[in-house]
Amino acid sequence: MKNILIIGCGLLGSSLLRSIKQKKIAKKIFIYEKSKKNILKIKKLNLPGRIVKSLKEGVINSDLIFFCTPMSEYKNIILKVNNFVSPNCLITDIGSSKTQSSKMIKKFLKKGISWVSSHPIAGSEVSGPEHGKSDMFENRWCILIKEKNTKKNHLNILNKFWKKIGCKTVIMTSEKHDKIFSITSHLPHLVAYNLVKSAQEFEKKQNYDLIKYSAGGLRDFSRIAASNEIMWRDIFFNNKKNITKAINLFIRNLIAFKKDINSQNNKSILKKLVQTKKVRTKIIKLKQDVNKPDFGRN
Amino acid sequence: MKNILIIGCGLLGSSLLRSIKQKKIAKKIFIYEKSKKNILKIKKLNLPGRIVKSLKEGVINSDLIFFCTPMSEYKNIILKVNNFVSPNCLITDIGSSKTQSSKMIKKFLKKGISWVSSHPIAGSEVSGPEHGKSDMFENRWCILIKEKNTKKNHLNILNKFWKKIGCKTVIMTSEKHDKIFSITSHLPHLVAYNLVKSAQEFEKKQNYDLIKYSAGGLRDFSRIAASNEIMWRDIFFNNKKNITKAINLFIRNLIAFKKDINSQNNKSILKKLVQTKKVRTKIIKLKQDVNKPDFGRN
Repeated sequence: MKNILIIGCGLLGSSLLRSIKQKKIAKKIFIYEKSKKNILKIKKLNLPGRIVKSLKEGVINSDLIFFCTPMSEYKNIILKVNNFVSPNCLITDIGSSKTQSSKMIKKFLKKGISWVSSHPIAGSEVSGPEHGKSDMFENRWCILIKEKNTKKNHLNILNKFWKKIGCKTVIMTSEKHDKIFSITSHLPHLVAYNLVKSAQEFEKKQNYDLIKYSAGGLRDFSRIAASNEIMWRDIFFNNKKNITKAINLFIRNLIAFKKDINSQNNKSILKKLVQTKKVRTKIIKLKQDVNKPDFGRN
Repeated sequence: MKNILIIGCGLLGSSLLRSIKQKKIAKKIFIYEKSKKNILKIKKLNLPGRIVKSLKEGVINSDLIFFCTPMSEYKNIILKVNNFVSPNCLITDIGSSKTQSSKMIKKFLKKGISWVSSHPIAGSEVSGPEHGKSDMFENRWCILIKEKNTKKNHLNILNKFWKKIGCKTVIMTSEKHDKIFSITSHLPHLVAYNLVKSAQEFEKKQNYDLIKYSAGGLRDFSRIAASNEIMWRDIFFNNKKNITKAINLFIRNLIAFKKDINSQNNKSILKKLVQTKKVRTKIIKLKQDVNKPDFGRN
């Protein structure tokens, strides 16, 4: 039983908070939150934990610190944390890209302080502590990042922590992490944003009222394209090398698809459409999505 | 009260069947289905209507005929229907693209026979009569296609029919229809297929087991990319002119996004990400999707 500080209490920070409380993982939970709006919401929701007025109060009283802010805020907070943090404390974060932020952390975090990065694969298109849920991480993967200098006992601490929260855990390097998630998460988000943007442009140019006909496919993309803009800007900038490669692969394939359509290449297109179906079956088998048509939505 | 023939009793044909029965819209319902597998399912499910052994039996006994097969089957069926159909009969279909199929219908349908095209905006990634639902079309838009020669009383008949089924209706030309749905439906499906295909290629090349980490975005695309391949091949081929334009617009925007990411153009990217969010709000307001985070899936 340790004392835990959560820095940034939005959707994921507040979910973590609820889960830690529910599973009785910490002795004390401290919350550091910059936004006055969020603080009011946390109080109104009567969430567990104590809101600290200064970072110092939270840091000196905690054994384990979670960065749950957008990644672009890490640097400023690290520079402040450096003033109070003791070598007995372990720091982690839940950011969605790792290589760039690792470099930044190495550069700015006080020597002798340990930071082992985590990435629980969970979230939603909505933001703010009012949307957090104690079961947000249940049965989800949590990636733990192993760098050259990562200590085994720190990995063990985090491994235990996330398992108690309800996650399945896996350890990999930041490079492998960033490659995988450039394809399974970052490209899908970018493509969804881009599709909705293209629809908006088309609507404006043609002067058609087309959003009302979105049930045929567009609506699914609009959900992802409603995700938090600060968080996603940070991810796109942080993982730009892998995302650029992913975009190039995607465009190459899309141009090939266009050729198939224009030449009515029956064999080639059917092969593609049949193959992609297999991924859905695999995802359902791996329990990565609900096994209901249309997400059970209607 | 009229007699209705449904040709093709898969997901949508069987949904229509259930709805017609439930709302008592027809005196008699006839089903013509080619697939023996589907016929067995229809019997086992004890669905309403009478399965006819020959097209002739269904056609000569019906006032209203629905084509609910993939569009690539229309021509063959039309050539058979021509032998028995009377001028008092009205034919419609529920296909997802209209301009090309309209031309084909004009060319092959016997002179003096009326075909007014419909497109209810409903469906799912699963196929077959076992997945049909009587409320499939409830509160969905149904587009009615008005061509130069379309008779007002035929539009009125279909308008009444779809409203009884539970749809909101709107009348437009096939050209406008195909432009709108190239963006709101056909491009999203193509992009989803293409994203899943790109992920499969990446997985193979890198030898990473990445599908299990699909909860961060990919899983949503995999649902759409599991849609019926025959239906979607037909749509892509039928609306290839508009889809090609939509792909080009999409690629132009994606390249601009890539530039923003690589130059870390904060202002430009935030503007895009904030703007796309508005579409989700509009879609929810228009009741085109469930008003729950993550489609209420977890």
